[in-house]
Amino acid sequence: MRGYTLFERVSRAFHDYPSLSKFVVISTVSGGGLIAYAEANTSSDAYTVAPPETGIKKKKVVVLGTGWAGTSFLKNLNHPTYDVQVISPRNYFAFTPLLPSVTVGTVEARSIVEPVRNIVRKKNVDVCFWEAECFKIDAQNKKVYCRSTKESNLNGKEEFSVDYDYLVVAMGARANTFNTPGVEENCHFLKEVEDAQKIRRTVIESFEKASLPNLSDEERKKILHFVVVGGGPTGVEFSAELHDFVNEDLVKLYPMAKDSVKITLLEAADHILNMFDKRITAFAEEKFSRDGINVKLGSMVVKVTDTEISTKVRGNGEISSMPYGMVVWSTGIGPHAITKDFMKQIGQNNRRALATDEWLRVEGCDNVYALGDCATVNQRKVMEDIAVIFSKADKDNSGTLTVKEFQEVIKDICERYPQVELYLKNKKMSDIVDLLKEAKGDVAKETIELNIEEFKSALSEVDTQMKNLPATAQVAAQQGAYLAKCFNRMEEAEKNPEGPLRFRGTGRHRFQPFRYRHLGQFAPLGGEQTAAQLPGDWVSIGHSTQWLWYSVYASKLVSWRTRALVVSDWMRRFIFGRDSSGI
Amino acid sequence: MRGYTLFERVSRAFHDYPSLSKFVVISTVSGGGLIAYAEANTSSDAYTVAPPETGIKKKKVVVLGTGWAGTSFLKNLNHPTYDVQVISPRNYFAFTPLLPSVTVGTVEARSIVEPVRNIVRKKNVDVCFWEAECFKIDAQNKKVYCRSTKESNLNGKEEFSVDYDYLVVAMGARANTFNTPGVEENCHFLKEVEDAQKIRRTVIESFEKASLPNLSDEERKKILHFVVVGGGPTGVEFSAELHDFVNEDLVKLYPMAKDSVKITLLEAADHILNMFDKRITAFAEEKFSRDGINVKLGSMVVKVTDTEISTKVRGNGEISSMPYGMVVWSTGIGPHAITKDFMKQIGQNNRRALATDEWLRVEGCDNVYALGDCATVNQRKVMEDIAVIFSKADKDNSGTLTVKEFQEVIKDICERYPQVELYLKNKKMSDIVDLLKEAKGDVAKETIELNIEEFKSALSEVDTQMKNLPATAQVAAQQGAYLAKCFNRMEEAEKNPEGPLRFRGTGRHRFQPFRYRHLGQFAPLGGEQTAAQLPGDWVSIGHSTQWLWYSVYASKLVSWRTRALVVSDWMRRFIFGRDSSGI
Repeated sequence: MRGYTLFERVSRAFHDYPSLSKFVVISTVSGGGLIAYAEANTSSDAYTVAPPETGIKKKKVVVLGTGWAGTSFLKNLNHPTYDVQVISPRNYFAFTPLLPSVTVGTVEARSIVEPVRNIVRKKNVDVCFWEAECFKIDAQNKKVYCRSTKESNLNGKEEFSVDYDYLVVAMGARANTFNTPGVEENCHFLKEVEDAQKIRRTVIESFEKASLPNLSDEERKKILHFVVVGGGPTGVEFSAELHDFVNEDLVKLYPMAKDSVKITLLEAADHILNMFDKRITAFAEEKFSRDGINVKLGSMVVKVTDTEISTKVRGNGEISSMPYGMVVWSTGIGPHAITKDFMKQIGQNNRRALATDEWLRVEGCDNVYALGDCATVNQRKVMEDIAVIFSKADKDNSGTLTVKEFQEVIKDICERYPQVELYLKNKKMSDIVDLLKEAKGDVAKETIELNIEEFKSALSEVDTQMKNLPATAQVAAQQGAYLAKCFNRMEEAEKNPEGPLRFRGTGRHRFQPFRYRHLGQFAPLGGEQTAAQLPGDWVSIGHSTQWLWYSVYASKLVSWRTRALVVSDWMRRFIFGRDSSGI
Repeated sequence: MRGYTLFERVSRAFHDYPSLSKFVVISTVSGGGLIAYAEANTSSDAYTVAPPETGIKKKKVVVLGTGWAGTSFLKNLNHPTYDVQVISPRNYFAFTPLLPSVTVGTVEARSIVEPVRNIVRKKNVDVCFWEAECFKIDAQNKKVYCRSTKESNLNGKEEFSVDYDYLVVAMGARANTFNTPGVEENCHFLKEVEDAQKIRRTVIESFEKASLPNLSDEERKKILHFVVVGGGPTGVEFSAELHDFVNEDLVKLYPMAKDSVKITLLEAADHILNMFDKRITAFAEEKFSRDGINVKLGSMVVKVTDTEISTKVRGNGEISSMPYGMVVWSTGIGPHAITKDFMKQIGQNNRRALATDEWLRVEGCDNVYALGDCATVNQRKVMEDIAVIFSKADKDNSGTLTVKEFQEVIKDICERYPQVELYLKNKKMSDIVDLLKEAKGDVAKETIELNIEEFKSALSEVDTQMKNLPATAQVAAQQGAYLAKCFNRMEEAEKNPEGPLRFRGTGRHRFQPFRYRHLGQFAPLGGEQTAAQLPGDWVSIGHSTQWLWYSVYASKLVSWRTRALVVSDWMRRFIFGRDSSGI
């Protein structure tokens, strides 16, 4: 079996002898070592051969992007009737929640990436990967135009076009500068692996520059002034990581670091981490103030030059400037140029991302799906459809709705309009009838009958429960998995639709609409302390949460390889500290 | 003890309780793990405080470069009367013998580097480090001029000058292109860590480019034609590593790789690895031919364009061209611009490197030492000094030399002129008297008396034994250690010289001259096979030698951190294969 890695041999052995236990620990010790877990089932379908060609023409699926959404789609797609072509300017998937750790070397860049070809090669679906960037989508002719991103002398052959039957747009987003002058030229971003690597080099460079012999104290302090713009999870985690790197590792090597380093975190709103529970926000602000991280709330950046950053105080409009050594910009996301161009093409000019319906289908064109950070689900309001809902529910066309009639369609309504269920839950109404009672006053359940106006008034408040989904890895991954499952059941669902009643139209929807399940969110705050907001408004803060964070992230990593690498990176940092070589 | 890494805490514990055994294995297992050895003694002088200032003005030592020579000097220097300033454009030391492994990810770049500040921070000698490049040496005024290499807006403060009492030049060398047109612009080199990282990215890029949809087979083959110029140890090892990467890892992900990849190794001489034993050369050539690596001997590169490389056959002068995708140039070394400039300044115009005497002192200026790849030891010929040797030996000024007189100085002669000892050894003469007998004919030992002409003829052949030292890490490291030991004993040796008799001049030399001890050399050939030429012309080839290679390299690594990282990289590759993400 020359040419196979140990991991593959073991996987294969387990496949051949499934009676071996599910988990095995391969532990090898040789002057420093590594321990890897191999789970038998994960690669049990390695070496399965693609089913024989059946003469049926396969449907061409083109996937743009290999981030959370695209990769999750690819991992979950397993129906052999698709011919998949993946196009992305990066030939790997990156585990982006660990990017802030990469900026200071707590984790190595290579430990959080996995080649796309590796992810898809063991599938029973035909998948081609092309490292290229899509520069035009032609939804009319079902074609995408792409070009290789690498410098090349291929005489124009670096451009090519691909036809599709279904297009899955998962290209992510770019950092949003809000057109603030000087940001593009002078700031670092933290979206890609390369960004994190560049930040790491720049931090070390700053310390080396500040060590040069003939600088004044003031110049040293300027060089070692790190400014982070944006108090969201990324900005906060980066500030915390940088603070730990300086205080745990760099102070030992750069004696002046203790007095000269300053970290400033600028946030335009009233608090950092404002999407989290107030207790977390308060804890984070208090910890940062103890750590000496300078948090400036209500500060909007208005300009960045090559030496100074200017901010406006939100209250009084006062503008002030401060010299800096390095700025990391992490304020939010905006659409890529190609996404914008496509939005214009399909008449979605004024949106911040590609609008889709609840089935992730892009509004305004056929067979195009969008998910992850480049898309936003445009939820249907109950009030828009109130008339058709009423007439569908009113089976006897009496012009009024009885409790019985309403109860027959309520499941479909809740499936189609999730805000209804949310509203009931928030109002602590166990029964839908309570809603009708509220509209009609306290009468006997059996006698309730609503006309259209009364029905409208009963449901008038439910749409306030609609919320846009956050642009997180969790949402993207769930969308990718959802869409893949829809694709896997496409043929079946065509015959036996699984979704709720179509209120506008006839029959049922083919699939249940996408529903996001929030599993909680972490905010690492440095010094081995993490805050977590878990479902049901549970809040957990401290060292134990840091261990929860370690275990959740280790378990969520994309492959056993990355899992072993990240864990050994953590161990290495714990034993030896972080490296400060300028590479 | 917040802020200390585990490693430091353990080191410290051992320092406090020396009764604990010398080696301890800290093994930690947590979902994948890392095992690290901590040797107590290595850091036992951590936290020792510098000796109190004694009012004696410290001598300023300036070290240029942090490669093998410079770092070895720094590690071994331990006399507290020096004030050391280290200047290098890289803030780390790189374990260069593993660079070919870094080009394909067998070992990670960060695993083979160690920050200079980390290496020197535990010393009892005052050491300052500045990340800058020296652009001028002014030996007249004992000053070096430097500038920061990083982009900066320091208003000219990125330039500074440093005074020295002793200057240690250890700046290494650059790749030598022999002024072949197009090499600088179109080829990759393999001297620095960045070079290796760039090669790694380019190899992956080539495979991605070759996978693009609308290329012809011919174009694919062109892109996947990797040319290595130079059949020395580096070129050979890189070819072998690339071959393994393609055949062990990439063939699984890029189906066309098997048929389209071609590796060509160009060597101008008649054989590859021609500094090694013939058995190794033959084995290597045979293995490469079995592996399908195309070795072209007697091929001189005359031109490289952006798409083609032209070679001249050494026998018949025939010139031919071939298209390529990537060229790695590894043919030898030449001096940096600054070294050349300095050589001109001190009248060493026509040399390939800075000439020093056997004490590593640069010829033509005072208190300047040069070592490693930027220097060459200019050994004194016995024949140049024959008259003074004779007159020193002839103590009674009789005009002839008796055996007794000769025996009294022979130790000094052998120390000062190592070629004499080498000559005796090669001629299998156990006694120096045999040499005289040879000149004088077979007479009784006691009656031998030589005049100057007979003495000349007796020693006439010894200078043929002089050899230039190879430009290897081993030589550089030994030179650094030698020079540091000289510096450590400088004061003492001033009073009690330790060296041989000064034949030109009076008294003794302060130190023994530098003597190189060859410990053997490895040539990894891929497929877990390595050749080794050990001292005494021992040759060892095969899998067992690969394990010898692993253990020697692991033990030679600069710190426990790098050791643990490199070993875990090897394990990782063994378990999971090499990564092919394009970062």
